[in-house]
Formats: sequence, structure tokens, C-alpha cells
Amino acid sequence: MQYVVGIDIGGTNLVVGCVADDGSALHGLLREPTRPEEGPDAVVHRLIGMAQRAMEQTAHAVPTVAFAGLGVGSPGPLNTKTGTVLLTPNLGWIDMPLRARLQQGLGLQTELDNDANCATLGEWWQGAAQGSSHVLGLTIGTGIGGGIILNGEIYHGAVDTAGEFGHTTIDADGRRCKCGNYGCLEAYASGPAIALRAIEAIEAGEESTLPEYVGNHLRRVSAETVYEAAKDGDELALEVVKETSRLIGAGIANLVNSFNPEVVVVCGGVTLAGDRLFIPLRREVNRRAFKPAASACRIVAGELPGTAGVYGAALMYLQRRQHEWGGAAGAGGSGSAPHA
Amino acid sequence: MQYVVGIDIGGTNLVVGCVADDGSALHGLLREPTRPEEGPDAVVHRLIGMAQRAMEQTAHAVPTVAFAGLGVGSPGPLNTKTGTVLLTPNLGWIDMPLRARLQQGLGLQTELDNDANCATLGEWWQGAAQGSSHVLGLTIGTGIGGGIILNGEIYHGAVDTAGEFGHTTIDADGRRCKCGNYGCLEAYASGPAIALRAIEAIEAGEESTLPEYVGNHLRRVSAETVYEAAKDGDELALEVVKETSRLIGAGIANLVNSFNPEVVVVCGGVTLAGDRLFIPLRREVNRRAFKPAASACRIVAGELPGTAGVYGAALMYLQRRQHEWGGAAGAGGSGSAPHA
Repeated sequence: MQYVVGIDIGGTNLVVGCVADDGSALHGLLREPTRPEEGPDAVVHRLIGMAQRAMEQTAHAVPTVAFAGLGVGSPGPLNTKTGTVLLTPNLGWIDMPLRARLQQGLGLQTELDNDANCATLGEWWQGAAQGSSHVLGLTIGTGIGGGIILNGEIYHGAVDTAGEFGHTTIDADGRRCKCGNYGCLEAYASGPAIALRAIEAIEAGEESTLPEYVGNHLRRVSAETVYEAAKDGDELALEVVKETSRLIGAGIANLVNSFNPEVVVVCGGVTLAGDRLFIPLRREVNRRAFKPAASACRIVAGELPGTAGVYGAALMYLQRRQHEWGGAAGAGGSGSAPHA
Repeated sequence: MQYVVGIDIGGTNLVVGCVADDGSALHGLLREPTRPEEGPDAVVHRLIGMAQRAMEQTAHAVPTVAFAGLGVGSPGPLNTKTGTVLLTPNLGWIDMPLRARLQQGLGLQTELDNDANCATLGEWWQGAAQGSSHVLGLTIGTGIGGGIILNGEIYHGAVDTAGEFGHTTIDADGRRCKCGNYGCLEAYASGPAIALRAIEAIEAGEESTLPEYVGNHLRRVSAETVYEAAKDGDELALEVVKETSRLIGAGIANLVNSFNPEVVVVCGGVTLAGDRLFIPLRREVNRRAFKPAASACRIVAGELPGTAGVYGAALMYLQRRQHEWGGAAGAGGSGSAPHA
């Protein structure tokens, strides 16, 4: 049985696992904190160790295993052709030849792509977007990433930067974003932005029980705290959650009118809020987007929390190899990938 | 020589012409006012007459001509499979079986698509976007339409509504748009919206020479008047033009970050403003969009004013036929289209 190692590099966690090339199994799933402050060499070193352990565990579970290669999802922007990560503000990497480093360290053919692209591809392959030809993914965490999957393959655009939905303007004169732009969706609806909007309101004098959740260290309020307090009925938290749904809804309505997708998969911790997020969000999309486009589009939570990026990185590797070998593109993992 | 009849239906004008299937020639170009108030039957009747005259003129110029079929670009939303226009607010059509009506009236195989899709495809085929694989079009007129051309073909999305860039939000709490949404690009930067913003400012007491251009009938101010007064140095008009460039720039920056196109082609009367539009517009895109994506993207005026829609409708017809016959997609007009 052929397996592909999948790596998902996040600002907070590294996740590694081995995926059967037909998507039927995932073995050796490992997760540990990224600790970017240790520098790129240390992170790469640990990734190599994690991948080796994941392969050992998989070999125990599947004695006939063979490893076809390695797929890596990394924050970008990056160059998929040279395998270089150009710049990742959250990790502090610049012009990092990640593909070459991992390929050398593990002796496995390696392919690199954007982390949100991989997560969306994973949801298309084994998660919430199976069977759909026009898929968008929105990953909401420290930042807001996005991915576009058309006919089962990542859409890259001209220079690999397509899908940066977090950095689309929903208020032309709005909040300054870390990217330099004004009024980006990410400046309102990323985890830190949700927390900041609540903190600012309290600092401006609004009443809330939120400080009690963090021992009155207001700066410790996180998006999770806000959603927890909302569940407990805190009025300010409820207002922030409602406003967040409305803003994400405005962002998704733009995507619906632009791409006319069959499904938008929302991934990340914020989806744990469930109906509290999705009901007002869907209402906002229906209010804003064209009726036929909105009616044709499901808006759902990801079904592979924590592993979508690993599945997607593995399939991305297989598809890249298939293209190289001149095989047909598409439904992925046909076993025509070469043996490492 | 095979030709295809192309029809471009606009809110203001109907344009018809006959295009050689390799794009090398356009004959029998005819244009007349749409006059939607006469009702759909009268418009269809006139379109049939225009197409017959266009074919006659083409037969005079090219004695060996044969007509392969008819491509029609119409405002939407529409269903390309059934050939039905579902709804066009500007024309007042509802569930109009346009393809069947034209096919019957002319005895030519007919294919239907969105007008802005066709205009963008025309610019890819014979205009400003030749040779590019990732193309977006923005048509600015009575409304703001859009088109997406990937690898030389129209990207339709799930139910034919992709590319509605005029109805993407750039200010979540902004001006109400005719579509029901708030803060749409179209509500600020369509021709009528440009005029309205100037009129509102004058009504609110701002000084301007604009009323002099329209015999003091303020409601007769159009986008053209505003651009003319700006050229003459009117301060209010200059401010409206600058703000318009900034808002279109914000909208295009969203497209650049989402699609990572090689080129965005801007079509419509507003492009006559030239540098006065494009210099601040490009500056705004560079300020807002990701550097690699902005650097990779040309933002240019269409090169086929008045005929892009006719060229694109003709190529759309040829591509649809090729797909049906199982031929290779792509560079269009290979002459493999069937004879009508």
C-alpha cells in the first residue's frame, strides 16, 4: 500500500501524518507546538524528526507500506515551482528553501503548497466538500487564509497567490490590517481581531463579564473567551459574535457573487461556535448575495479539524506527480505516483 | 471561410456583427438603440433583422462565406444550458427563452452567455488580454459586470453567475445598491452612481461648475459630464473622479488578492478618462493588494470598445460547439465548428 507523508505547518502547531494514496487511512498522526521563535533550522529539524516517527508508526500499522513522497502545506506567499517559502510574517521565514531542506533530510520527493490551499483540498478529498467541482475554503485562525479548488485541483492563479480572501476589503476606510491594507476581513474576523474588538469595547467603557474569564487581565481575552462568554449570555460578547458573523457573511457574499461556488468550507476554531456563527452568517450571505448564487451554495464547517491540511498536502503531492508523469488530473491518489 | 454571427445586448445599445472563425475579420457591424420599453418581442424582432442585414453585408464582402452559427451575450442572470435569460432589471425580461427565439428566427444554431463574460472573452481573443491564462474583465456602464477567463474559456461557476464583481461589498455599511445589498462597488462606480455622487454633493451645497454643463438641469449630469468638467479643472468633479478611481481600485485589489490574475481588463465609457482614471486606480491597487500579486497583474483598458462583446459571443459559440463535438478546448475558432 502506498502512503504519502503530509505536513501542515501552522503559526501555532505542526501536524504530520501518513495518508494512504486512496485517502482511506491516516496513520502516525503527530502534533506539536511550532515554536517559531527557535528559528527555521530548529523547526525544520523537528519536522524531519516528526515525519520519521510518523513513518515508523505507519510501518508498524501497515507492514506492506511504501512511501511515495511528501506533501507540505506552509503559510505563504511561496513559490510552488522552486519550493521556496518567500515570506511568512507569523514564522519569520524569508526565502526559505523548504522543499529542498525536507527532501534532503528525509530522502523523499517533496512538493510544497500554501497551507490554506492544502486544507481546502483536504476537505474536498475526504471532508465537507466531497463531490463538488467549485469549492472555496476559508481558514479562520491567527489569520484568515483561503483556498480555491476547481474540479478537484488547487487553483493557483498567475504566481501562486490566489485565494487570499482574508485580505479582501469589506470596508474601504476601515481598520488597518497587518498586511498594510485597510478594512480587510482579517482585520475584523481573525481570532486576534475578534478578541481585540471585545477588548476595545470594554476599554471604551462597555460593561461585560469578559474580564472575569481572564482574571481581569484584559489582554488575555481570546476569541475562545469571547465565544465562551457569549454562550454564557454576556451581552457584549454576544454582540461581538453577531457582528463577526455579519462581517464574515459579507466576505463570503463577495466570494459567492465572484466565484459562484457550490460550497464554502469554513475551517478553524471559530467554527466550534456552531449555529451561533453559522445561522447569522448564512442569513447575511442570503441578504447580500445574488439569489441564484446564494441558493446554489452550501456554507459549512470543515469536517476534518486538525487533519484537513495533512490530507490535502498528501493529495497535492500525488496530483503534482501525476501531472509531471503526464497522467490524467483529477480525483487524486490513483496510485500512479512514483515510488520514492 | 466560416463566420459566426455575434450579438451583444446592452441596456443602451444592441450590437451585431459577423466574425471570421479565426478572429481575423469582423464584417457587417451594426449598432442601434436597445429601446427596452418596446418590450422583449420587439427587441428580438429587431435583433433578427439586424443579424440578417449583418449576414448580407458580410456575404457581399466575403463571397465564399458560410455561417457556422450565432453567439449571443445578454445581461443576466441566465441559464446557458437552457438558453434562457432569467431576469434582467435593465431590460425588464423574465424567463425569456432568448436562444430558442433567435435560433428559430434565423435558422442558425445559437449559444447564449452573459454579456460581460463575452466582452472579457473577446478581449482575451483579440484585445487587451491576448496570451494570458488568468484574465478578469470589469465592464463599467449603467451597471458593473464582470467576467473570468481561465485558460481561454469562460469560468461559469456552479450555476452560471460567476463574475458579478459589481456586486461585491467594499463598504459593509455603505450605500444601498439596486441589487438589495449594501456598499456594492456598483453603487459607487457605475456611470449613474458617479453622476449621483456629484449631484448629491452639489445639492448638499458644494460649489461646482457642473450645472453649467447641463443648462442647470442638475439631474442631467452624467458620468461623462463629470469627467468632462474634471478635464476642465472643476474641483468637485476632480474629487468625484479621484474617489471613483480609489473605489474601483479597492474593488480590483480584492480581485487581485482573490484570483491572482495576470491581467484585469477594464471596459466601458469610463475608460475614456485614461490616465485620470488609471493612474490613481493602479496606485490604489498597489497600496491594497499583496505585492507579488499586484506586481504580476496588468490593469488595462479594453482594446475593443464597442466590439469586444461581439467577438467574445462569436468565440463563445465556437468553443461551446467544440466541447459538444469532443474537440479540444482552448485557443478557439479552429474551424472545427459544424456548418449550420
